[in-house]
Amino acid sequence: MPKLLILSHETDEYRKLIEQANLLNLEIVADQAECEIILGEPRLLREILPNIPNLKWMQSMYAGVETLMDSSLRRDYLLTNARGVFGELMSEYVFGYMLVHEKKVFERYASQQNHKYDRFESGMLRGKTMGLLGVGSIGGHLAGTAKHFGMKVHGFTRGSETSKQVDRYFHPITLETDSLLSTQEQAPTLQSFAKRLDYLVVVLPRTEGTNQIVNADLLNALPSHAIVINVGRGNAVDEPALVEALTKGKIAGAILDVTAKEPLAEDHPFWTTPNLLLTFHTSAISYPEDITRLFIENYYLYIEGKPLKYQVDFERGY
Amino acid sequence: MPKLLILSHETDEYRKLIEQANLLNLEIVADQAECEIILGEPRLLREILPNIPNLKWMQSMYAGVETLMDSSLRRDYLLTNARGVFGELMSEYVFGYMLVHEKKVFERYASQQNHKYDRFESGMLRGKTMGLLGVGSIGGHLAGTAKHFGMKVHGFTRGSETSKQVDRYFHPITLETDSLLSTQEQAPTLQSFAKRLDYLVVVLPRTEGTNQIVNADLLNALPSHAIVINVGRGNAVDEPALVEALTKGKIAGAILDVTAKEPLAEDHPFWTTPNLLLTFHTSAISYPEDITRLFIENYYLYIEGKPLKYQVDFERGY
Repeated sequence: MPKLLILSHETDEYRKLIEQANLLNLEIVADQAECEIILGEPRLLREILPNIPNLKWMQSMYAGVETLMDSSLRRDYLLTNARGVFGELMSEYVFGYMLVHEKKVFERYASQQNHKYDRFESGMLRGKTMGLLGVGSIGGHLAGTAKHFGMKVHGFTRGSETSKQVDRYFHPITLETDSLLSTQEQAPTLQSFAKRLDYLVVVLPRTEGTNQIVNADLLNALPSHAIVINVGRGNAVDEPALVEALTKGKIAGAILDVTAKEPLAEDHPFWTTPNLLLTFHTSAISYPEDITRLFIENYYLYIEGKPLKYQVDFERGY
Repeated sequence: MPKLLILSHETDEYRKLIEQANLLNLEIVADQAECEIILGEPRLLREILPNIPNLKWMQSMYAGVETLMDSSLRRDYLLTNARGVFGELMSEYVFGYMLVHEKKVFERYASQQNHKYDRFESGMLRGKTMGLLGVGSIGGHLAGTAKHFGMKVHGFTRGSETSKQVDRYFHPITLETDSLLSTQEQAPTLQSFAKRLDYLVVVLPRTEGTNQIVNADLLNALPSHAIVINVGRGNAVDEPALVEALTKGKIAGAILDVTAKEPLAEDHPFWTTPNLLLTFHTSAISYPEDITRLFIENYYLYIEGKPLKYQVDFERGY
């Protein structure tokens, strides 16, 4: 009988949901020394990783598992992360903020505060181009919403073309598509990708290869009316370069849900950079109902000895 | 050879688009005494209505044609209005503002201004219920976007059930469904419709039957977390009742693109009513490209003697 440990700040809620599901043969335990399966937050697992002799499978409650990727940490277990559950929430966030920009929500509110009946024109998403930097499960969902609103969708990936909703893919030119690419090697295709965009949406995991991919060159390649939205990880953005691009009006705005260091330092320039909106890593929280549904699906695959969904590749880092 | 007069503040742009289309047999004229067809803004037509002896068909550039509905005005011509072109724009506006509410865009901006890394939770559209007061071409489009975001859609209409995307229809209980209903007769069903909603979206034309349909009874029937959005016409809202509902927190907010009198009077309470956002009739402007496409489609039906699209019923008022 497999023994499950729940490692979360919301353990009680998860326990209730899993008990309700009445899973075949599964026993929920509180002792880490006993458990074979963990459903939990990656950071909490990292702390106890040396003390779980029987660990065979960990289902992460988050999409980002970079805290477990350190090469000094053990990798003798199966790690699956949470994918397929954040697409809808990310779509609400990303299109919400795109529409805030197009419909001039803040500008109209300023008119109202000034008691000014001011009928300046709104923009529209229809016909605009969204570029996805990274096209995984979230990117694919964003692409679907973009098509619903009549947008064009471009995607930049290393080589994969998983979403059919992407109208045009861009890949770095390289002989070994599996190798980690330096930012320099990716640069020509990235800039060609960037120069056609109205919106650049960054949906990358934190890996060596994604460090500061949004740098001065990429920002300079974007049209001056472009908006950058980062809902992936803060490491993807060269922060001083973004501050400069916004301050000098090289791009029209940025919406950052993530930053290199979180919480953001009190003296960080982002607090007051013009046309920058911060949302403090709230774009897609993990709902226990969604995560439990995914865990149950994977649990049945696990006890049947079948391949699990959303398995993390320790080499690739996601 | 049919003679067309263009009656618009953007006559030059329309003339160019129509000339490019090279329409069979159509001649564009400047003299109102000569013209058989008008493509124009309803208010401009109203002014010259007595002086167009040969008028047979008017294609309105707007959806709202109430200025031409006065029973003292002639009705001996075919009137078609602009429908089918505003759905996409209205969806961008309505879902933009819904997402502003769910994602707490203004609240997060306040956190940023206070340099406060504040991770309060966002809401989400998924699972919420949108109620459409009026389900025509725009309402149908809004319903489609709501389904994309995983919402439930309820619709209140006199009797029609045109959109298949509406999960549940509500109709006033009456023996004569074709008659104009007083607000009082509609009240029981309206309140039953209202009490299940997270968002009430008003997409009604201005008619006798829609006057002040959003009154104190309807507002009281809404849950206290509900948001009212009016993208139809200002006559639908009992404005003092809405001010009171917002001031007393009976509903959570309102977004008004339209008001009973436009532009809004300088001393109108709406300027400072809590949780009320004004957008000054900008939610869906008429794009000459869209309107011209519709005109061309109807023109070919006209010269072939076939029924035109979106014909207005003078008795019904839309």
